[in-house]
Amino acid sequence: MGVAAILSAATPPPAVDQAAPAGDALSALMAMLHDDIAATNRAIVARMDSQVALIPQLAAHIVAAGGKRLRPLLTLAASRLCGYPPPGDAGQRHVQLAACVEFIHTATLLHDDVVDESLLRRGLASANAVFGNKASVLVGDFLFTRAFQLMVEDGSLKVLDILCRASATISEGEVLQLVIQNDLAANETQYLDVIKGKTAALFVAACQVGAVVADRPAAEERALAEFGLNLGIAFQLVDDALDYAADQATLGKTVGDDFREGKITLPVLHAYHAGDAEEQAFWRRTVGELDQTVTDLAQAMRLMHRHGAIAATLARAADFVAEAKRALGVFPPSVMRARLMDVADYTVNRAR
Amino acid sequence: MGVAAILSAATPPPAVDQAAPAGDALSALMAMLHDDIAATNRAIVARMDSQVALIPQLAAHIVAAGGKRLRPLLTLAASRLCGYPPPGDAGQRHVQLAACVEFIHTATLLHDDVVDESLLRRGLASANAVFGNKASVLVGDFLFTRAFQLMVEDGSLKVLDILCRASATISEGEVLQLVIQNDLAANETQYLDVIKGKTAALFVAACQVGAVVADRPAAEERALAEFGLNLGIAFQLVDDALDYAADQATLGKTVGDDFREGKITLPVLHAYHAGDAEEQAFWRRTVGELDQTVTDLAQAMRLMHRHGAIAATLARAADFVAEAKRALGVFPPSVMRARLMDVADYTVNRAR
Repeated sequence: MGVAAILSAATPPPAVDQAAPAGDALSALMAMLHDDIAATNRAIVARMDSQVALIPQLAAHIVAAGGKRLRPLLTLAASRLCGYPPPGDAGQRHVQLAACVEFIHTATLLHDDVVDESLLRRGLASANAVFGNKASVLVGDFLFTRAFQLMVEDGSLKVLDILCRASATISEGEVLQLVIQNDLAANETQYLDVIKGKTAALFVAACQVGAVVADRPAAEERALAEFGLNLGIAFQLVDDALDYAADQATLGKTVGDDFREGKITLPVLHAYHAGDAEEQAFWRRTVGELDQTVTDLAQAMRLMHRHGAIAATLARAADFVAEAKRALGVFPPSVMRARLMDVADYTVNRAR
Repeated sequence: MGVAAILSAATPPPAVDQAAPAGDALSALMAMLHDDIAATNRAIVARMDSQVALIPQLAAHIVAAGGKRLRPLLTLAASRLCGYPPPGDAGQRHVQLAACVEFIHTATLLHDDVVDESLLRRGLASANAVFGNKASVLVGDFLFTRAFQLMVEDGSLKVLDILCRASATISEGEVLQLVIQNDLAANETQYLDVIKGKTAALFVAACQVGAVVADRPAAEERALAEFGLNLGIAFQLVDDALDYAADQATLGKTVGDDFREGKITLPVLHAYHAGDAEEQAFWRRTVGELDQTVTDLAQAMRLMHRHGAIAATLARAADFVAEAKRALGVFPPSVMRARLMDVADYTVNRAR
């Protein structure tokens, strides 16, 4: 089965068009960028192809399941906000770079799927059960290199510098996350460093390149980077809160993945530090030592609720969203600016 | 412990200086490039640093164990062969790109270390036992992105294109290897495609960029690419032969890794196709189904010997070496050209 066939079978219509319920902020932005999104989807399908059939198969599987495609959407929106391409110009740099950003994101998802021996022994191989560790790594590498090829074709050393730097920061964030995994002595600063790296860095680059392709002044480039940074942090805070939220069916997400892996996230740190001795012992056993029983997740969620850990995390996210929106103040009011601000709000509101 | 301390503790003097016995072809080339190699080692140490301590620790571990550093050596030698840097020019592009090539190689080694669930269940987690799957993947990613940053700093889109293309080809080769793993119906063409990708592609790029930094005509660039391709294929053929060779103590390699993973290599294909029904059943059980007992490796090596599989593989390698040396004919005779030809011979001779 060819790539196009796999993708269309998996997502009629393309994933990006069906992710959000009609009428919300994301849908409004997607409607404005409909043609750009279609072109990006075509670029993604075209560039994940390979003589080695497993590559498009696995890539299509994860790209189709990739959900909202928020990151490439940010590249498209930021470019348009900055006036790229100018009227009458058939420039497609924003589309190529949006595809590039999605490839980087997909590669990190695939590499995130790699499971450690210790987790495997506990039967937690669900994430990459279909294809296996090795295939996840290697196809991720392929998409990474395709992303870099798209940048090279773009031809701007400045764009290359921004996206390469982001990629390095992402992997540093992922490694730091691994280092503080199961470590309840980790502090909030370390946690923020992790999510700035593993999540926000790509949001930064995805937004910033919009100003670069449009050849806008440094102040606008900085503003978009600032927007991306704060939005990315907020996005990950909400994600980390949702991992312990009871009503996840609507979002199609499973609850408790972070808990089972012993990830140190803000909700966990909040509940741990607010807890009494017995509660702290619970967290040390379950998250610290990964010694868990089937009822522990429910207990973790009760403790989170007791101490308002989810609400506190979402409140922090709202602060970052406000900061993100403030950064867009350097741009004159426009429909695109308004839609980007709405999307920032949506990031937190999706959890409410 | 800082990177420099780890490295110097692990490798006094640097690995590249101690890899080969004095007096052989590799040592002669390394002696000619002594200053360039020292500069490359410094660049490698400087650029693997990170705030996240696990990164330099793990990177140093694998870089120190990395052996001969043949690939960056090829970049240095190819650059010098092409007259870069010109006399009196303090240019260091060849050094930066040599470090870049080594980072790509190290990243692929780390990603190669990732072990599949099925192998883990068979107790074959030795390769990455120290650090774990996840750390291998993430630190590999970091080194990949550092490699791309070095290319971006170099500033040549042509160099970027060559090395990005090589990286994509490497991952395609690795995926193809995974696809035909355990598949005794695979043919020699597929096997050659695998090694052209996973090994030779980086040899090609490592050599080719030498002509690019020296701004030499296309014919010399092609000749170096040709040299790298044939040398890389020969190198991998010999490696695959050595995995079944009895006297590996001198090379510090373990025998039988490929066998235990069920890798389809030329020696296996040779022995399988030359074998009778009983022998073919042996290969199907051990390599095809990974159903192995402790005496099977010895039996595999006996069958290889019986059918001359190792000798046949080394003879193929010698053909590719001859092709590699022929490609250098476009360059006028020089000491550097002679040393490169010697190194090509060494690639096969190390197995004899």
